[in-house]
Amino acid sequence: MKLKLKNLNWSAGRPVAILHEKLADNKSINVNDRIIIKKGRKSIVAVVDTAAGLFKKNEIIVSTEVLKTLKAKKKELVEIELALKPESISLIYKKLEGNRLKRKEYEEIMRDIANNSLTETEIAFFVSAVYNNSMDIKETADLTRALVNTGQNLKLKNVVDKHSIGGIPGRLTPIIIPICASAGLIMPKTSSRAITTPAGTADAIECLARVDFSIPEVEKITRQTGACMVWGGSLNLAPADDKIIRVERVLNLDPEAQLLASIMAKKISVNAKHVLIDIPYGENAKVNKSQAKSLAKKFKKLGKIFKIKIKCILTKVNEPLGNGIGPSLEIKDVLKVLRREDSCHLLEKNALIISGKILELTKKARRGTGIKLAREILESGKAFKKFIEIIKAQKGKLKKIQLAKFSKTIRASRNGRIKEINIKKINQLAKILGCPVDKAAGIYLYKHLNDKIKKGDSLLTLYSESKEELSHGLNFYKKLKPIDLG
Amino acid sequence: MKLKLKNLNWSAGRPVAILHEKLADNKSINVNDRIIIKKGRKSIVAVVDTAAGLFKKNEIIVSTEVLKTLKAKKKELVEIELALKPESISLIYKKLEGNRLKRKEYEEIMRDIANNSLTETEIAFFVSAVYNNSMDIKETADLTRALVNTGQNLKLKNVVDKHSIGGIPGRLTPIIIPICASAGLIMPKTSSRAITTPAGTADAIECLARVDFSIPEVEKITRQTGACMVWGGSLNLAPADDKIIRVERVLNLDPEAQLLASIMAKKISVNAKHVLIDIPYGENAKVNKSQAKSLAKKFKKLGKIFKIKIKCILTKVNEPLGNGIGPSLEIKDVLKVLRREDSCHLLEKNALIISGKILELTKKARRGTGIKLAREILESGKAFKKFIEIIKAQKGKLKKIQLAKFSKTIRASRNGRIKEINIKKINQLAKILGCPVDKAAGIYLYKHLNDKIKKGDSLLTLYSESKEELSHGLNFYKKLKPIDLG
Repeated sequence: MKLKLKNLNWSAGRPVAILHEKLADNKSINVNDRIIIKKGRKSIVAVVDTAAGLFKKNEIIVSTEVLKTLKAKKKELVEIELALKPESISLIYKKLEGNRLKRKEYEEIMRDIANNSLTETEIAFFVSAVYNNSMDIKETADLTRALVNTGQNLKLKNVVDKHSIGGIPGRLTPIIIPICASAGLIMPKTSSRAITTPAGTADAIECLARVDFSIPEVEKITRQTGACMVWGGSLNLAPADDKIIRVERVLNLDPEAQLLASIMAKKISVNAKHVLIDIPYGENAKVNKSQAKSLAKKFKKLGKIFKIKIKCILTKVNEPLGNGIGPSLEIKDVLKVLRREDSCHLLEKNALIISGKILELTKKARRGTGIKLAREILESGKAFKKFIEIIKAQKGKLKKIQLAKFSKTIRASRNGRIKEINIKKINQLAKILGCPVDKAAGIYLYKHLNDKIKKGDSLLTLYSESKEELSHGLNFYKKLKPIDLG
Repeated sequence: MKLKLKNLNWSAGRPVAILHEKLADNKSINVNDRIIIKKGRKSIVAVVDTAAGLFKKNEIIVSTEVLKTLKAKKKELVEIELALKPESISLIYKKLEGNRLKRKEYEEIMRDIANNSLTETEIAFFVSAVYNNSMDIKETADLTRALVNTGQNLKLKNVVDKHSIGGIPGRLTPIIIPICASAGLIMPKTSSRAITTPAGTADAIECLARVDFSIPEVEKITRQTGACMVWGGSLNLAPADDKIIRVERVLNLDPEAQLLASIMAKKISVNAKHVLIDIPYGENAKVNKSQAKSLAKKFKKLGKIFKIKIKCILTKVNEPLGNGIGPSLEIKDVLKVLRREDSCHLLEKNALIISGKILELTKKARRGTGIKLAREILESGKAFKKFIEIIKAQKGKLKKIQLAKFSKTIRASRNGRIKEINIKKINQLAKILGCPVDKAAGIYLYKHLNDKIKKGDSLLTLYSESKEELSHGLNFYKKLKPIDLG
């Protein structure tokens, strides 16, 4: 049946369509049913709402998410038909019951996630299923391949990549990439937005430049500058994965098999031949030491299956790497390191270690000399020059980073020494303040582990775009005490 | 901030509000954030969409689900404020990690589910968490009490109740209730809509009468006729439970602890003192024999904790109880039994066994004589009279039951004998045909287990309101063969 698009500029965060009540009744279509909307050769699955008033029976209101996919404008005609309940729902049930799925079955689930046939609620059941049932390497590789198959690939050659399993505030990537690209490596770095932390690399870079590019644009930027630092989500590298990550974020979940498959799928899609994986571990990091070792082993195995040279670095981390927590505050730290104004606590040190290992893995430096070469590149100013070059190629420029409207500095109530900075609680606090959606929100830490404190010293400043969030953040701080003065 | 309601008669299946893009930007409110909407002393949490065009910056469009709760009309002013991410999300995470939750923690989750602070995706994680982690009786009782506390209670005394854990097509309740009420028992029966089957008792009764009543109305109907057969969902007995059931339905899940707590909570809320629980088991039933025994044991234990006399009946069931599958088709069977036109296969037999046990449990009949008394009441026509009385009190009347527009009869392709009728597949088939939303859709079975079949005999007729669903149903039938001719 053909319907005319009525435009409402309606962003619903997911593909939804409003049908006229009478039309829906006539056609036995119910609220929450799924319909396929087609325009020419493009199509998308959307969830149905119904309404009456403000529009006619032969019209359809769709959310901007639908318009974008169909590349449609108002008053254009679209074709709709009822979408049947996808059979992959029974496969999700099968996994939740603890059964092993085959590659074809993962491909069916991933295809249905990628084309919106599964709702977020159904994806949540899939995430839980993977979270609760361990998977061996063969099954993880099947899931990886299924993720890769839902998306596009980069055509670049000799690609080198790095990845951090994250969890620790502080952006290493925007320091590492310019260093390695200055040494001649090809590094089209795609990053996710924040999953379990207040800021992802893409969120931070976006404070200075665009991060949403198409595949040909990424290829062009990389050919021009040797590297890029973009958001993977706009590249359609593994669209099912991006949707899964969005659901994981609801509960800050990151099941091991899904994490392995997600990372490997992105590396395969960018055609990487060498990959360095940074696995920070610690009491309050995403993983502990034994989990970190297990991950490293599995990455190695997956690397063999997919013919990618993988090196893992395990680093013990007990506190935020820099002073800032939140997209704007973290990119400020990066700029200080690149400009040689401040080492920003552990940020410079860890960036140099990882850059050194990448240079050794790719034979740009002999074993044991990578870190020296990395330091030379950073100190010479070459890395900062390369950073500016990449930012410009990404339609951005250096500018003063604005912080959020409302702020509050918390001071020490007595003398002491910083005994603990609980990363999980600090991350939670930054999210309460509005991160990562509000880029300029977050936390500035004045002190680090083992620093001596005098009564009245500034401990941290909270930044937020709304008064409510700021006062909620303060309450949270008082209740959960993320910083322990011993 | 105050906004004017703009009406669109927009049913979204959940509370959603559309804010003007500019207002949202101004106030740092993002798509998918939650806001609290208040009118006078009523309030509701809704998910945010944004839009531009068709309405002004000081207006708000809300779904009918919001209007209903606020009892608001268009052009009225409502107050909105940002709702913070509920802390119960971290409790759901805790449960998913396999930890035990305390009663207070369950109360927090249930309160947030009841007042819409948790989305369906977040509830899905809770359901998965309960599904994957076994709970002991103490924890199950805590969950039960938390469910009860979210809702209202019936004020009636000496209430007797029955419950079937379901899974088997065929409605016993509309036969049992009139029999027991005729014997003088007080049975305000609240039923759910279908969870894992194509029809719940409420769906079936709704073919003849209203099932959505308030608590005072239910009390009035019960005082008048001795019983009622209504939908529990409109009574607000345990509103959190109704929302959980809606999410469970997505994947046909029914975790044991949630099932126990859900049933017990409803029994406590109606103030039941005697409860008979029917646990059908079998290869393709919801549970097998050992699961049935485990359930019975746990019900007994919960009965002791909550001071309710509980009797469980375990019956082996390998096929649909009657001929019809689907709300309309199942109520047709019920009417045939009550009118003494047909025993509808196992329907009459099982209804009499359960009625007999209820009469014995409540001392209306001596041990061993309950079934005899039940049969006398059914055969005398008293039960049918009582049924009509209840239906009338529920604003309904006896009428011809319409079946769905499109139908197709499947015949045997050869001689044989019915070796298996797979209940799970039959249920799935009926759902594909549109059950339970399309009441007149479903399946009519001509034959039962062990019946002899000649080539060309009618096996079953499929009914559906749409041609697409009918042909999808036919394909499913051919592929999964729910009936085995040996």
